[in-house]
Amino acid sequence: MRDTSRGDVSASLQVNFDRLRDEILALAEIGRDDQAGGLYRMAFTPADMEGRRWLADRIEKAGLEAITDGAANLGTRYGGEPNEPVVMVGSHIDTVPNAGYLDGTLGVLIGLEAIRRMKEAGVKTRRPVELISFSDEEGRFGGLFGSQAVAGEINPETVRTARDLNGVSLVDAMSECGYEAMAALNARRDRATIHSYIELHIEQGPVLDQKQIPVGVVENITGLFKWSVRLEGVPNHAGTTPMEMRRDPFMGLAEFAGEVPRILEENGSDLSRATIGRVDLFPGAANTVPGEVVFSMDVRDTSSEVMEQLAGAFRKALSAIARRRGLKFGFDVLSEVEPAPCDPEIVGIIERQAGIRGLKSLRMPSGAAHDAQIMSRIAPIGMVFVPSKDGRSHSPAEWTAWEDIEAGANVMLGTLLELAGSR
Amino acid sequence: MRDTSRGDVSASLQVNFDRLRDEILALAEIGRDDQAGGLYRMAFTPADMEGRRWLADRIEKAGLEAITDGAANLGTRYGGEPNEPVVMVGSHIDTVPNAGYLDGTLGVLIGLEAIRRMKEAGVKTRRPVELISFSDEEGRFGGLFGSQAVAGEINPETVRTARDLNGVSLVDAMSECGYEAMAALNARRDRATIHSYIELHIEQGPVLDQKQIPVGVVENITGLFKWSVRLEGVPNHAGTTPMEMRRDPFMGLAEFAGEVPRILEENGSDLSRATIGRVDLFPGAANTVPGEVVFSMDVRDTSSEVMEQLAGAFRKALSAIARRRGLKFGFDVLSEVEPAPCDPEIVGIIERQAGIRGLKSLRMPSGAAHDAQIMSRIAPIGMVFVPSKDGRSHSPAEWTAWEDIEAGANVMLGTLLELAGSR
Repeated sequence: MRDTSRGDVSASLQVNFDRLRDEILALAEIGRDDQAGGLYRMAFTPADMEGRRWLADRIEKAGLEAITDGAANLGTRYGGEPNEPVVMVGSHIDTVPNAGYLDGTLGVLIGLEAIRRMKEAGVKTRRPVELISFSDEEGRFGGLFGSQAVAGEINPETVRTARDLNGVSLVDAMSECGYEAMAALNARRDRATIHSYIELHIEQGPVLDQKQIPVGVVENITGLFKWSVRLEGVPNHAGTTPMEMRRDPFMGLAEFAGEVPRILEENGSDLSRATIGRVDLFPGAANTVPGEVVFSMDVRDTSSEVMEQLAGAFRKALSAIARRRGLKFGFDVLSEVEPAPCDPEIVGIIERQAGIRGLKSLRMPSGAAHDAQIMSRIAPIGMVFVPSKDGRSHSPAEWTAWEDIEAGANVMLGTLLELAGSR
Repeated sequence: MRDTSRGDVSASLQVNFDRLRDEILALAEIGRDDQAGGLYRMAFTPADMEGRRWLADRIEKAGLEAITDGAANLGTRYGGEPNEPVVMVGSHIDTVPNAGYLDGTLGVLIGLEAIRRMKEAGVKTRRPVELISFSDEEGRFGGLFGSQAVAGEINPETVRTARDLNGVSLVDAMSECGYEAMAALNARRDRATIHSYIELHIEQGPVLDQKQIPVGVVENITGLFKWSVRLEGVPNHAGTTPMEMRRDPFMGLAEFAGEVPRILEENGSDLSRATIGRVDLFPGAANTVPGEVVFSMDVRDTSSEVMEQLAGAFRKALSAIARRRGLKFGFDVLSEVEPAPCDPEIVGIIERQAGIRGLKSLRMPSGAAHDAQIMSRIAPIGMVFVPSKDGRSHSPAEWTAWEDIEAGANVMLGTLLELAGSR
């Protein structure tokens, strides 16, 4: 990307913020359930379809063409010279249940606004720019479906067997919406056709909000491993079993949890995270010493080496505790995702675009998974974070100040113009 | 009880063990579910009623009268002089779901065998002896119902509102079995009419089995308090929330659990027990730092003072941890039961009866609740424990060696003869 030409327009063109704000509020009406609270625009539900129709309409009202690929990813494309690879900007408009207004949506609407402004201003670019709103990022059917299809990471078996929590198959759900699920295999792009992928997202964490910095420049998307850990002891009567005759797996878990901070300090980085989010005791009665405990371990870092060291240290600690306490220890790996680095040049461009506008920015990791993580397998990626009020997300309390949204939108517009080579 | 005359017969009379064994095996057929495993003879179910009819038949076949009181407690009475208070021996034949053969049942059948042997041998006693098989000890409708009725610890409101886990009321369940629930209020006995109450039970713990001692002489039935403790923090994304910005209530619980042994050592006795048997995390997702944890604390000791000290120490530890970690702490008291001491003279009689027979015995607490605990409020009580194989109970794996059952039965017979004043 050393040939990126830096037109002045990338510093001077601004988004139409009133229009962007109106669209954010308009899309927030779709799938809203005032009784339950929050948005319910899960992938391939009627609300999701209504959202897609609304988005296609906005694209067409801007004089652009609404394009849907085989994975039902929806977007548009603008400008560029023949045979040049595309600069993509995207995110998703599907939501978790009980969602806020901004997760995913903000990235899509800012991408649309950026491309629309370029068209209105008659900006010419060397590379075409493309908006893409990915299908099922949030995981009704497993998550990151649309970006995985684009990156060529699905196959007929994964498409055929995907089901939601109620047992509805992806094939049936897409079919009801008028899509043919197997066509998702056609959504794959050749890496030669993609110049770069950028995505704006709310941080979903407290860092920018606490530090009062409007722009986060993502350097790495963290990898993670998720374990289901099992400690097995002996269930006993809480009254009749002396303390020293117990083999209580919950006390083993408590000891292990107490060692997590030490293990992170000794083997992790400042960016390491470890979370025990789910704990099940069996039989789970107040008057019974538990015989078994099953718990989740979610461990993240931006470095594969650090993650390996952490995995080793957690295993050792659990084995030692189990041995000493007469417990059986086992674990299943539920998922493993490699960290994804952002492209250093795109990181630099985003930083410069913030600087031009007098905006403070902070290099930071993304602790959450995003479509960008998948896209990193076929293209250089970049991500912009805007502050999440109190770090809240996946909740109707999710919010970002309007001025931060405007700032982020302009940084994205400038970055897009630079990457596309505006004249 | 200093006037108890010690007839020689208390040392020489033996139970008919073959008959006792046959009855244990016969009652083990009633309510057995071979597919689900174990016994399902929950109070006021058809299996419980079949068990009661079988027991009444055994009583009558022995030439005794089957007597049912207002609380549907079933038993019989033998001998004694006019106006003398009764020596009671009892337990229960109702079971938990998936039960073993001996919990409760053994005490009732040994009581029956002892009284039957006295009758067969023509033993005369100063005080009448009475067998009582209490209703709903195990708690389909809350537990210890029959003994609470005898001790006068029920009232019309408790009878009217008692329901099982499926919402069936005690009133309806008893009515279907031909009983009038409100008549339970008539089962109350005057304390002047009861000389003493004794009960044999399986230990339900591992101590006698591990020490290979056949006779446990209960000195105290432990009291308990049961808390539901709530620690409230802030739910957060497991990936986006740095470790130092978390207020994770599960880590607070883990720290607290780690302090339980210290708190027991500093404030408890050798007989103190503390158990965390139920833990619920909210929202309980692997990728979310929990926002709230609710857990049970079951704490037992034989001394009210020790229990008070423990309660204070646990409260202090929880408050300190909550304060330091920015958590909210609250707890509800789910139940509180005072410890019940056994009568020192009865303890001595049981010990001597074991010694006469060349049986090793061990003074010990009962960590579990028993009808004897309730009966202690209106009478001097004593309890004999027999070993539980591997401490197993409330399970089809519950078992006691036949020779230990025979030994326990003869100790009970001797104790009953001494208490009743045999001639």
